[in-house]
Amino acid sequence: MVGMRGAYGGGGGAYNDSKSRPHGGGMAAAPVTEQEIAAMAVHKVAPPPAQSTASKMKARVKETFFPDDPFRAFKGQPLGTQWLMAVRYLFPILDWVPSYSFSLFKSDLVAGLTIASLAIPQASSIFSMHLSMLCMGISYAKLASLPPIIGLYSSFVPPMVYAVLGSSRDLAVGPVSIASLIMGSMLRQAVSPTAEPLLFLQLAFTSTFFAGLVQASLGILRLGFVIDFLSKATLVGFMAGAAIIVALQQLKALLGIVHFTTEMGIVPVMASVFHHTNEWSWQTILMGVCFLVFLLSARHVSIRWPKLFWVSACAPLASVIISTLLVYLFKAQNHGISIIGQLKCGLNHPSWDKLLFDTTYLGLTMKTGLVTGIISLTEGIAVGRTFASIRGYQVDGNKEMMAIGLMNVVGSCTSCYVTTGAFSRSAVNHNAGCKTAMSNVIMALTVMVTLLFLMPLFVYTPNVVLGAIIIAAVIGLIDLPAVYHIWKMDKMDFLVCVCAFAGVIFISVQEGLAIAVGISIFRVLMQITRPKMMVQGNIKGTDIYRDLHHYKEAQRVSGFLILAIEAPINFANCNYLNERIKRWIEEESFEQDKHTELHFIILDLSAVPAIDTSGIAFLIDIKKSIEKRGLELVLVNPTGEVMEKIQRANEAQNYFRPDCLYLTTAEAVASLSALAKMTKP
Amino acid sequence: MVGMRGAYGGGGGAYNDSKSRPHGGGMAAAPVTEQEIAAMAVHKVAPPPAQSTASKMKARVKETFFPDDPFRAFKGQPLGTQWLMAVRYLFPILDWVPSYSFSLFKSDLVAGLTIASLAIPQASSIFSMHLSMLCMGISYAKLASLPPIIGLYSSFVPPMVYAVLGSSRDLAVGPVSIASLIMGSMLRQAVSPTAEPLLFLQLAFTSTFFAGLVQASLGILRLGFVIDFLSKATLVGFMAGAAIIVALQQLKALLGIVHFTTEMGIVPVMASVFHHTNEWSWQTILMGVCFLVFLLSARHVSIRWPKLFWVSACAPLASVIISTLLVYLFKAQNHGISIIGQLKCGLNHPSWDKLLFDTTYLGLTMKTGLVTGIISLTEGIAVGRTFASIRGYQVDGNKEMMAIGLMNVVGSCTSCYVTTGAFSRSAVNHNAGCKTAMSNVIMALTVMVTLLFLMPLFVYTPNVVLGAIIIAAVIGLIDLPAVYHIWKMDKMDFLVCVCAFAGVIFISVQEGLAIAVGISIFRVLMQITRPKMMVQGNIKGTDIYRDLHHYKEAQRVSGFLILAIEAPINFANCNYLNERIKRWIEEESFEQDKHTELHFIILDLSAVPAIDTSGIAFLIDIKKSIEKRGLELVLVNPTGEVMEKIQRANEAQNYFRPDCLYLTTAEAVASLSALAKMTKP
Repeated sequence: MVGMRGAYGGGGGAYNDSKSRPHGGGMAAAPVTEQEIAAMAVHKVAPPPAQSTASKMKARVKETFFPDDPFRAFKGQPLGTQWLMAVRYLFPILDWVPSYSFSLFKSDLVAGLTIASLAIPQASSIFSMHLSMLCMGISYAKLASLPPIIGLYSSFVPPMVYAVLGSSRDLAVGPVSIASLIMGSMLRQAVSPTAEPLLFLQLAFTSTFFAGLVQASLGILRLGFVIDFLSKATLVGFMAGAAIIVALQQLKALLGIVHFTTEMGIVPVMASVFHHTNEWSWQTILMGVCFLVFLLSARHVSIRWPKLFWVSACAPLASVIISTLLVYLFKAQNHGISIIGQLKCGLNHPSWDKLLFDTTYLGLTMKTGLVTGIISLTEGIAVGRTFASIRGYQVDGNKEMMAIGLMNVVGSCTSCYVTTGAFSRSAVNHNAGCKTAMSNVIMALTVMVTLLFLMPLFVYTPNVVLGAIIIAAVIGLIDLPAVYHIWKMDKMDFLVCVCAFAGVIFISVQEGLAIAVGISIFRVLMQITRPKMMVQGNIKGTDIYRDLHHYKEAQRVSGFLILAIEAPINFANCNYLNERIKRWIEEESFEQDKHTELHFIILDLSAVPAIDTSGIAFLIDIKKSIEKRGLELVLVNPTGEVMEKIQRANEAQNYFRPDCLYLTTAEAVASLSALAKMTKP
Repeated sequence: MVGMRGAYGGGGGAYNDSKSRPHGGGMAAAPVTEQEIAAMAVHKVAPPPAQSTASKMKARVKETFFPDDPFRAFKGQPLGTQWLMAVRYLFPILDWVPSYSFSLFKSDLVAGLTIASLAIPQASSIFSMHLSMLCMGISYAKLASLPPIIGLYSSFVPPMVYAVLGSSRDLAVGPVSIASLIMGSMLRQAVSPTAEPLLFLQLAFTSTFFAGLVQASLGILRLGFVIDFLSKATLVGFMAGAAIIVALQQLKALLGIVHFTTEMGIVPVMASVFHHTNEWSWQTILMGVCFLVFLLSARHVSIRWPKLFWVSACAPLASVIISTLLVYLFKAQNHGISIIGQLKCGLNHPSWDKLLFDTTYLGLTMKTGLVTGIISLTEGIAVGRTFASIRGYQVDGNKEMMAIGLMNVVGSCTSCYVTTGAFSRSAVNHNAGCKTAMSNVIMALTVMVTLLFLMPLFVYTPNVVLGAIIIAAVIGLIDLPAVYHIWKMDKMDFLVCVCAFAGVIFISVQEGLAIAVGISIFRVLMQITRPKMMVQGNIKGTDIYRDLHHYKEAQRVSGFLILAIEAPINFANCNYLNERIKRWIEEESFEQDKHTELHFIILDLSAVPAIDTSGIAFLIDIKKSIEKRGLELVLVNPTGEVMEKIQRANEAQNYFRPDCLYLTTAEAVASLSALAKMTKP
């Protein structure tokens, strides 16, 4: 066993046990006194301040679920104020509505009218943008195999709900392509939308209800971090794959095929396309290609000259108007071009009686709700964060989740399907200069007018144009520069990205996503299972110790092996660490043999934030096996939690005496080499 | 933007941009020269040595799959020797058999005979231990709802295979309780062992085949770390729960109940026990209780006086002999005591024709094989490691997996079910002083003798004694001191342990295990998702910076906020880090306002082993938003991988100039405060 030393041994432990300490073979034998050694290592490793388990748990729970400390402002306020603040927290609309007096409205009206007269072109462009989005809504509903009118309904109620509950000023909500795609493909597996349209609709509303419930619960339970597991790389790959799947689905409309596969994969879709060449309609193809070229050119113009953002924003509406006119004038519906057909006028019908909690479909709707809920939430939160960071305000993720969730729950009762904040809409909103959530209200009013009066105008709108609009929209989701950036930065992230992409295209949308999330998590687990360890050396003339491999000026300290572990030590890696450290020692013994013997193993625990029962068992085991080899193990700078567990292990048996704990590597090296000199025979 | 500094700015950058640098409000304005500042921070953060992606990948793959570097010894050997070494690697038996010459055998024989004459009592005790284990084999086969003879067969072939392939000297292989339990319960869900005994047997062999395949593949693919995810805490809870489930199942035999539930949970079993009180047989209960008391006393004796280990080892055999004699003498089988009945003499039949790869049951057998394979592998490896560490030799985990896996594949073709290294057997083996894998051969020979000649003796063995043997054996799996130790060390580990226990008892064996593994992994993920961050302060009179909360002597440096992050920065935590750091800055600004203004944020990255694309985006974002507040962010000691990614980010735009990178916190503080003094107006 190792002897006690003056510096740490509680004072007064003489070096009577010097035989057991390995001797400094190759070192100069200058006499060193106890006092000098004590001076070399004056900084004790302190135990962390005592804290009860309950208070530690409380701190950890707070850090996990309330990292943003949302009730900070509440502290020290009288009870009445606290209530008022809580209501305001839940309804951000109250931040600006109560101070909205009659005189304010008068001046707003005057100002508004003045500006309006100057800005009629801009206002009309915003209006036409909103109408363009309506066309997108119709298109997305078709993507989810739902009646087009549901897409319009979904652009009416949810924006109004969000205006009351949401805290982002730029987010424009409505149906989005990915969530529509996933909902359609998951529900189609069980029910055919053509054979049982009513049941399909009921399942869609029920899934929307569950999606809202999942989103709101994540917010209320403060589990917002769940969506953090969808990394940027996963999303880039997933979006690109989904965009291709969505675009391929539009081949049905674009080629005028009647009998199309219901599957989503690239293989069955292409097979279906080339099996039905006899159904291809040249009129449809011609129209589709023309409008697709028009839409893509408009998109290109807006990317090239950002000020002309309204060109691409208005293009969908223009396409719809022009194509509808063309069909109407040439009676093209009789020449193989399929049209939307009659849509009923009128606002959303209540649909709570359509929610279906039948056990036959409960599993399906819950699963669909979970997947679409999380995906659409991820999109909504990411869009909100992006614009908040551009404008320099904060968005509370958990609050947003509650807002989006409630919006979908209300939506499911008013004939809407899953909606969320869409990137393209919000970008238009932002570029058009919106200032408050009021823009969502205006958008809802536009939709209301459409629903009440303009529905007959859509009768002759050809489906092929909706297909072209979707393709032009989803092409923006394929973000090649981001893929290149990921490739350059991190090859593993690139792998995740490619897996998500390939999984979505070749297997299925959900499984592709699951594979990518699985790989991301597996990668994180691997970082724990195979933690980084480095051999450190001294940078000459300083007290600094750094990675030998990284810093060429760092030099081995003869007689010492200095290892730094960079991960929590736990069940998943203690076997690895054990074997790896033994291998380092073997290699190091071999390396150092030529010059001098190895005596001390220094384990730098600065970067070990936590340790568990298996980890402590590992430390004890490695200490024993190192001592069996006649070497000595010392630990440097254990952090609070690690120090606490070491103390508790010491209660059973004094494994880690104070004399094997040092605050810095430099002090450990100084003190140990002095000691080795002293105990030299 | 921040100005260039002489120390890092590539030499010669004058402080012409001093207006943008925040001014040191509360500091003394002593004149400081550029040279002094340069001297304060002489250590540059070096980029890591350039390395190609391929070589980095190679290093990572090696560290992941070959952490033990098994081919170390092969290097620099001629090709012939390498081949020889490879064969020896695969068949550890070759390590000692080839050098086993005739003269060695002669001396061994003489020595053996000499010792034998002195050690007949010991030899006979080892022999009776082996026979006791046979009785355990019969009992375990009943636990898996298999014919008792399969338990004997499984004690014959696998030990011989292991003797050839295995590298542990102490491991004694055979059927074990947990794997038997799991296999029985999983297969019973689909097929009734009483209604379709042949099909059940076929499924058992097929599951064994898949278990072996899984085990061998884990070894060959070097995925041994998969079993590391079963932490100590999980195993303790799981074992205790499984022991109680197993013991409860024995109530059938112990009470003489004929109509017993096939379910495993504590609730249905207890309900079944008290619904059939009319079937309780007092003779059976009396016999069972007597033998249970005898076996438990023997166990107690062996624990109390470790030298008497053979008492508990021989007790099962003694029980079987005595009870069989009792039944035979009193014709007790006519008085309500059920007996094993006729067993056929003869060695294992080949069973490869019984392997069933029918699609109906393929899913079930593969799943059963996977679960039992991993569980039994965990037990085998853990036992091997335990005894290797006691005796001070190394066991190669991946090699052991191949050995155990091949043993089970061979077993499945020779009428054996899943076997592995059992703790109780190996402990007896170790205590009896075994030296090589030869002990497994001797054990197999004992079984052979039994199978060939002693089978008729088992006819009258009562089932109640087998039940008592199992209960006495599994009680040892309930490790209360370990539970207490876990409770004391780590409350989260205790939670995992309790969840595994409760899950096994109340839900099912597999799901209990899945829940516990899930919680363990979730905990690891949470450590990444909510990483530790600490505010550091200076320990007076030194260059050491430590956690303010932990070290009372550490003091805040006015004007600075020093944060250390202790986890890889990746997609799972960059949102959290972003929000949390902003909150630190707000709180710190508030705190420091009284004395002096906050100017510099120092981010210590020493403990950040890795960073991904999202992490780099986070660093850039936090730098920008800190600069927006008029503060300055500097990074301290980024490790190799982090530094490399920072450089790559810099290629696009020069986000992190050399003047915001420092090697140590002390140098950063010294250099920045000197600069603040200089630029003071």
